[in-house]
Amino acid sequence: MPQFLDTTTADFETRFAALLGMKREDSPDVDAIVADIIADVRARGDAAVIELTAKFDKLALKPETLAFSEAEIAAEIAKVPAAERAALELAAKRIRAYHERQMPEDQSWTEPTGAMLGWRWTPVSAAGLYVPGGLASYPSSVLMNAIPAKVAGVERLVVVCPTPGGVVNPLVLLAAQIAGVDTVYRIGGAQAVAALAYGTDTIAPVDKITGPGNAFVAAAKRRVFGKVGIDMIAGPSEILVIADGTGDPDWIALDLLSQAEHDESAQSILITPDAGFGRAVAEAVEKRLETLERRAIAGPSWRDFGAVIVTRDLSEAAALSNRVAPEHLELCVADPDALSAEITHAGAIFLGAYTPEAIGDYIGGPNHVLPTARSARFSSGLSVLDFLKRTTLAKMTPEALKAIGPSAEVLAKSESLEAHGLSVRARLDALNEGEG
Amino acid sequence: MPQFLDTTTADFETRFAALLGMKREDSPDVDAIVADIIADVRARGDAAVIELTAKFDKLALKPETLAFSEAEIAAEIAKVPAAERAALELAAKRIRAYHERQMPEDQSWTEPTGAMLGWRWTPVSAAGLYVPGGLASYPSSVLMNAIPAKVAGVERLVVVCPTPGGVVNPLVLLAAQIAGVDTVYRIGGAQAVAALAYGTDTIAPVDKITGPGNAFVAAAKRRVFGKVGIDMIAGPSEILVIADGTGDPDWIALDLLSQAEHDESAQSILITPDAGFGRAVAEAVEKRLETLERRAIAGPSWRDFGAVIVTRDLSEAAALSNRVAPEHLELCVADPDALSAEITHAGAIFLGAYTPEAIGDYIGGPNHVLPTARSARFSSGLSVLDFLKRTTLAKMTPEALKAIGPSAEVLAKSESLEAHGLSVRARLDALNEGEG
Repeated sequence: MPQFLDTTTADFETRFAALLGMKREDSPDVDAIVADIIADVRARGDAAVIELTAKFDKLALKPETLAFSEAEIAAEIAKVPAAERAALELAAKRIRAYHERQMPEDQSWTEPTGAMLGWRWTPVSAAGLYVPGGLASYPSSVLMNAIPAKVAGVERLVVVCPTPGGVVNPLVLLAAQIAGVDTVYRIGGAQAVAALAYGTDTIAPVDKITGPGNAFVAAAKRRVFGKVGIDMIAGPSEILVIADGTGDPDWIALDLLSQAEHDESAQSILITPDAGFGRAVAEAVEKRLETLERRAIAGPSWRDFGAVIVTRDLSEAAALSNRVAPEHLELCVADPDALSAEITHAGAIFLGAYTPEAIGDYIGGPNHVLPTARSARFSSGLSVLDFLKRTTLAKMTPEALKAIGPSAEVLAKSESLEAHGLSVRARLDALNEGEG
Repeated sequence: MPQFLDTTTADFETRFAALLGMKREDSPDVDAIVADIIADVRARGDAAVIELTAKFDKLALKPETLAFSEAEIAAEIAKVPAAERAALELAAKRIRAYHERQMPEDQSWTEPTGAMLGWRWTPVSAAGLYVPGGLASYPSSVLMNAIPAKVAGVERLVVVCPTPGGVVNPLVLLAAQIAGVDTVYRIGGAQAVAALAYGTDTIAPVDKITGPGNAFVAAAKRRVFGKVGIDMIAGPSEILVIADGTGDPDWIALDLLSQAEHDESAQSILITPDAGFGRAVAEAVEKRLETLERRAIAGPSWRDFGAVIVTRDLSEAAALSNRVAPEHLELCVADPDALSAEITHAGAIFLGAYTPEAIGDYIGGPNHVLPTARSARFSSGLSVLDFLKRTTLAKMTPEALKAIGPSAEVLAKSESLEAHGLSVRARLDALNEGEG
């Protein structure tokens, strides 16, 4: 059974603070190992990548087999059942349609002095997407990372995906093909991140690296940040459900378990003003845990990090949720739109009883790469903006420079930056002379 | 004299690559010291901050004097000359007007099945702005960081600014007041960053930290990233000027020097198809360097990192500029709009002869916090988006769930995530029963 909290009890604040501050993840210190791997790849390129892949993935590669060939991809993809292909294609279509609406517009305007101001957006030239191998090799994540990049207009999009022992998930290759990925490299770990950031003879460097990974991948992304852009350092997954007690407890139980089954360090929280409903959901979770395939993962997650919090009312529930700033928030209440208006911090909101979070993981359209570990307080899920950058524009006319230049000169002098002031003054003097 | 390169010579690619790869900055490894400081502030709060401030800034503080009082602020601000106040106010007004146009719109739409999709933007609740003390204590940076936060709707905005020996720049306090900053703390270094990220008894924690700083501040920001959001790790400043030879060489010389005077590790590059103009600009720089107040900084920067590159034509100049991805780009050419269309990577573009970069530093309106060290390939200058985050929204109807739910179920099964699939299946079964 998970923790039960009640906002009317004296120890609530202490217990809620403990819940917020709970350390759910061991972060092994792999930084020194990762630093060595990156230095090795920078120094020896392909040779280092190939050696490290042989060591960690038990896979012998040559420069010419680092990437999957077209024939290999076709052979793997042919194994995918039609129903799975159709589902992936529908998901891709819906994700693309959602993200196309995110494309921001360029702006420019002219001031009365004739000065033009504005900005324009341009895509990152090349992006690399990290796809984990093994169990966490999710084709849905390929779509969620690759489609926003393609919508943004990224010219060259590559995937790195380790294939320990040579085993690959055909659905990952199919998802990459559907999303328009140019090349898939069968490498992973810190060596793949280093190759993407610095390039090798075979692998051209990219400008941005996104996608989830283990501690080595996370440490490598943190290290190459600055040389290239990265998305975020993902933590274990979370769901928070606010329920008013009108729904089926079993539905909520399954929603809570759909986070818990990801990872023993995932966190599932139910907040409800209906204590009886809270107990009913907890009982439904226990019942489902008896048979769930991944009960060995979901069980510990629910017992160690799960919580049921009983509040005075729904507004108090919303206020608590804002303090959690959950990655996923379900509003299983009669009027989800009204409650949604009270939410200030959440990665994604799923409104109403017919929107299980799993819809958002696969097929709703919004991105499933979302801010974890309370970072929805200050960051957003993946979007086309992650693959675009904004260049600001300014064009002064002589009249505009005469109007605002003197103030720039005053500020430059106040900051003791003489050349800044002179660069304005030289032009103003020439303009004044021209008039004299 | 700086380097002279010519794209028609055989060694050009080698020399240009060396210019791109030039290491301009020593990064002292202060990470261990910073880790200790952060741990100390987390453990002992105000007491640690006060001790570290006494040690590094030679300033004795108590918890109640960590922040400037209203009376202290008023007394400092009274010292500011009227012309400087007026210039700051004009700058603030223009920066505010520019950034107000950046506010993104919420979107939501309804699909034929009745499903609602969309997203909405909300501000970060609290932000902290780091303002360096001493020479680099720029009031313009206070405006450039604080105004986007206020426009975004940040509720609580605080400044930390070290005041070694108790000396403060009155213009910094005035800029903070004009921009609407709530509190200014007279602390700096890694201890200030730690206090902002984790909070102390006196200093409430914030969600996002922005602003430039020395190696200790940069290392601290990198360390607290994840616990809070940060803007970027700023490197030394850069300018690249593309000139067609139609302008006054002295204007360009001053523009190049206005970066060089910031920092010995700043970089100023001129690209022009007119070799004679290139030489004339270099001569004008030398002449200005004879008398420039900050020649001891600007001189080494120009000699060590400056470059004049002669190209075949302006398109080649634009292509080289895109490889540099400069922080600041001036287009001092007859048709700057046409050339601007060829630019794919730059932090900010200043178009035409009457737009010296210094206008952008102070008063143009666009932000002067821009991506350095070639990071304009993948990132943007500071904007209101840095103080906002996007929450995605999805609301399925029974009809919508029936339309797309089965595909989510297929994908969940293919990823062996049973509870994900069951959370959809339970609802679909209930809906089908209801109809049966």
